[in-house]
Formats: sequence, C-alpha cells, structure tokens
Amino acid sequence: MPSEFCYRRVVQFAETDLAGIVHFSTMFRYMEEAEHAMWRSVGLTIAERGGTLGWPRLSAAVEFRNPLRFEDEFEVAVRISALKTRTIEYEFVLRREDAFIAVGRIVCICARTQPDGTMRATEIPAEIRTRLEPFVAS
Amino acid sequence: MPSEFCYRRVVQFAETDLAGIVHFSTMFRYMEEAEHAMWRSVGLTIAERGGTLGWPRLSAAVEFRNPLRFEDEFEVAVRISALKTRTIEYEFVLRREDAFIAVGRIVCICARTQPDGTMRATEIPAEIRTRLEPFVAS
Amino acid sequence: MPSEFCYRRVVQFAETDLAGIVHFSTMFRYMEEAEHAMWRSVGLTIAERGGTLGWPRLSAAVEFRNPLRFEDEFEVAVRISALKTRTIEYEFVLRREDAFIAVGRIVCICARTQPDGTMRATEIPAEIRTRLEPFVAS
Amino acid sequence: MPSEFCYRRVVQFAETDLAGIVHFSTMFRYMEEAEHAMWRSVGLTIAERGGTLGWPRLSAAVEFRNPLRFEDEFEVAVRISALKTRTIEYEFVLRREDAFIAVGRIVCICARTQPDGTMRATEIPAEIRTRLEPFVAS
Repeated sequence: MPSEFCYRRVVQFAETDLAGIVHFSTMFRYMEEAEHAMWRSVGLTIAERGGTLGWPRLSAAVEFRNPLRFEDEFEVAVRISALKTRTIEYEFVLRREDAFIAVGRIVCICARTQPDGTMRATEIPAEIRTRLEPFVAS
Repeated sequence: MPSEFCYRRVVQFAETDLAGIVHFSTMFRYMEEAEHAMWRSVGLTIAERGGTLGWPRLSAAVEFRNPLRFEDEFEVAVRISALKTRTIEYEFVLRREDAFIAVGRIVCICARTQPDGTMRATEIPAEIRTRLEPFVAS
Repeated sequence: MPSEFCYRRVVQFAETDLAGIVHFSTMFRYMEEAEHAMWRSVGLTIAERGGTLGWPRLSAAVEFRNPLRFEDEFEVAVRISALKTRTIEYEFVLRREDAFIAVGRIVCICARTQPDGTMRATEIPAEIRTRLEPFVAS
Repeated sequence: MPSEFCYRRVVQFAETDLAGIVHFSTMFRYMEEAEHAMWRSVGLTIAERGGTLGWPRLSAAVEFRNPLRFEDEFEVAVRISALKTRTIEYEFVLRREDAFIAVGRIVCICARTQPDGTMRATEIPAEIRTRLEPFVAS
C-alpha cells in the first residue's frame, strides 16, 4: 500500500509575477517544500546541522497545465517513484480543488561533502532508506 | 547559419542556499533571463506594457552537472529548437569557464488574455516570428 | 483591547543562503505574508481579482537580532500602529520559541490604478477600515 | 573626495509581482548586489570560500518613491556612511533615468564563525578597511 505525502499551501503575493500568476520557477520551490515536509513527517531532515550529507539535484522537470494565482489554496502530492542505491526519484502532482495544476519530477543523489569542500556521491544510509520506504510507489 | 544568443551573469549571494551553491530553482530564472535578453537583442519584449499577449510555460526541465557558487561568472547559451505555429521551444546550456553546469529546455505557448482574465492560445504574430528566426537551430 | 495577529511559519530550504541562515530580504517576505494572512482572517484580500485597489509600500525597515535557520519554526506577530486616512503602518515582531529574531515596520498607502496604468493615492474604503480596526494598537 | 560606487541593472521578469512592479523585498536584493559589486571592484569578497568571516545585517531600511517595472534599466549608487570598528553602514540610492526610485540603508557587523557554528562580532580586518576607505563619505 504505497502512500503519498500531501503538503498544503497557499500562494503568497511575492510568488506571483506581472502576468498575475505564480512564476514557473516557484513551482519547483513548492515541490521541494513538499519533499522536505515529507522527510520531516518521518523524523528526517535533508540538512542536518553540522552534517556532511547533502542531496544535490540531478534533474528537475515540470509540465504545467493551469496557473496558480494569489491566495489560491493548493496541495502538492509527493511520492517516491524510485529509491535506488544512491539516488531518489520523486514525483509530484500539484492540484487546486477545482483544477489540475502541474506534474513534476525531481531526481537527487546522496552526496557527502569532503574536507576540501567538494561533494562525492555515496550510498543512501540505511536508516533514511527505511524511513522513506512507506512513500515508495509500489 | 543558426545563431545562439549568449547571456552572461554573475551569481548573486541571495541565489545561494545553505549548501553553499545556487538553488536549483534559480537555474530556471537564469534560463528565463537569457530568453528575455535574447528577445531584447532583436527589439522585442515578452511583456509589452498594456499588451494582452503572454507566453505561459507548458514545460520546463533541467539536467544539472556541476554546481554554481557565489560570484561565479557563467554564461547561458540559448537557441530555439522549435518555432511552431503557437509554441516556442528553447534550449539552454549553462557554462562556467572551467565547467559545464547544466542543460535545460523550456516550452512556452503564445496566448492572449481575454476580457474575462483567462488566456487563450493564439498564433505567434508574424513580426515576432521573423525577428526570432535567426535563433532557430537549423 | 488591541489584538495582534499571529502568523506561524517554518523556514524553507530555498530561503537560506550560503551563510546557513535566512537571507535578510526574506524577512520582509515573512512580514508581508503575516500582513496578508491578517487581512484574510477578517475576510479581506489586499489584491482583489480584477480590482483596481492596491497597497504600494512607502517604507520598510527591519532590525535583526538573531538569525533563522532551515526548519526553524517561528511566528510573526503583526499589529497596526497607525490607521490613517490613506496609509496603514504595520509593526511586526518575529520570534522563535527560544529567541527574539527581528522587529520590523512597513508603511503602505491605499492607491487606485488609473486607466493609464499609473496609481493615485486614495482614501482607505470604510469597510476595509472597519474590519482592520481590531488590529489597531490602542 | 569620497566616491560612490555605481551598479547598473535591468529588472527581470521574476522580480515583478501581480501589481506589475518590482516586489519591495527585491529592492533589498538590488542594494546587496550593489554592495557586493563594490567589494569586488576593489578586489574583495564578502564571502571567501572556506573562510570564517561573515557580515550579518543588523538593520535594513528603504523608502520607496517610484516603482520599477519589467525591463526598466536603473542604477544603484552605494557609499559607506560610517566605517566603524566592527560595523559598516551603507547608503543606497536607486535611480532610473527619469525618476528617483528609492533610498536605503543597511548596517552590517563583522563576525567570525566559531567552531560551534555560532558567530561572534569581531574587528573589521585592516586590509578590508583600507580597501573600502575610498567609498567612505567625507
């Protein structure tokens, strides 16, 4: 029984542009907010203070169907479509009560910051994998 | 002889996040800045004041290869991979002198705002098409 | 019995910068979010769709005491320190459970968009004034 | 002969909001961009890679006179109104060719990150002080 995580949000004024709708780059921020809220919901954080583990993005893509406007209430449903050794692939669906807004996908890789500041890909720690398991699509 | 437009930029402080690199959503803003600078370079604007023509995005996607950091100088090369009746498909390559940063794609549609505020897809005006022609990949 | 409105929020990843703290410009967005939530709490909106009334800012100022970090939970308390004929002056206090974060002030003016697109200052409509009254500091 | 530093910029689409003008919080980003460009102009950076010196803001304030719109070209003139032992006070004037836009002020403090991650105020290093001297208002 795969479970998707649902994140609710209202559009803020500064997120709109002169066309009167949410700027398309902000859709990626909404998706990321949902991802991080999903992690928090199982006691995880993607950025532990003083930690060296990070999750740089390999790719991000969105298809837009309908615009969002100021004060629109909407939800972002997120689930994990692939939980691999080093990467996580997320799928997102943005919906307003009366309209389908957008669908997106983000792939990130588990990486550890080295003493010289660069990052090196590493295996996803077992505990993180276990806690994210409920969100993996069957 | 197709020509790509080249937009140069330096990374600003507020564009970085706690991981010390440019936030991935900002890459889409860089791509859009390059698009709009390309339009200006041929005497066009994507948002005429008082006008009703707009260019909502149908899709946007990026693949990330290397991070950008504060004060990095980089360029965004943009060209048009498809100039259709109602849609424009852009391709972007982000490069720093010593590294390939990312490659992206944005598809937008020509739309006219109706008296009731909604937008309706419409044909790309001939003059805009003519001026953008030099950037269409052969 | 003056009442302040309290807005709760969690710091999002994209709101941090390479120093690991919330970028100072974002504090102004937090304050604005609280202002707009306060309006919604009494059935108002600062940007009616198709409306011509707007609230451009005359000034904005913040004093920062402590930084906010990723996933910090905090609140923005907002009240109206002056409700004049044409202007509203807001005062904001940002607090985390264990720390005072910042105090801010925004002054905005009621303006109506003219047919030529410019804005002209106008009196605050009576109904808006009545509904905001409970938030005016005594 | 005090010298002000002049930073030139064009308004980007994503910096506007549904009111059709630059969002007020973005004005603070413009001011910061000018500050950092001023530092670069004398061979300095406010965020050395791997460094521990930072410049958190103590306060920031702007008075707005005229709005900026998409593709407006404008300049930010910045000078140092006070260069003290531990703090720098900047003054900013934003101008478009035909209009005065805004005036702002930012005060920041020199701080060094401690091993535990907190920051402690410290004296501005002599070399930085020397290089910034030309921008101090007489």
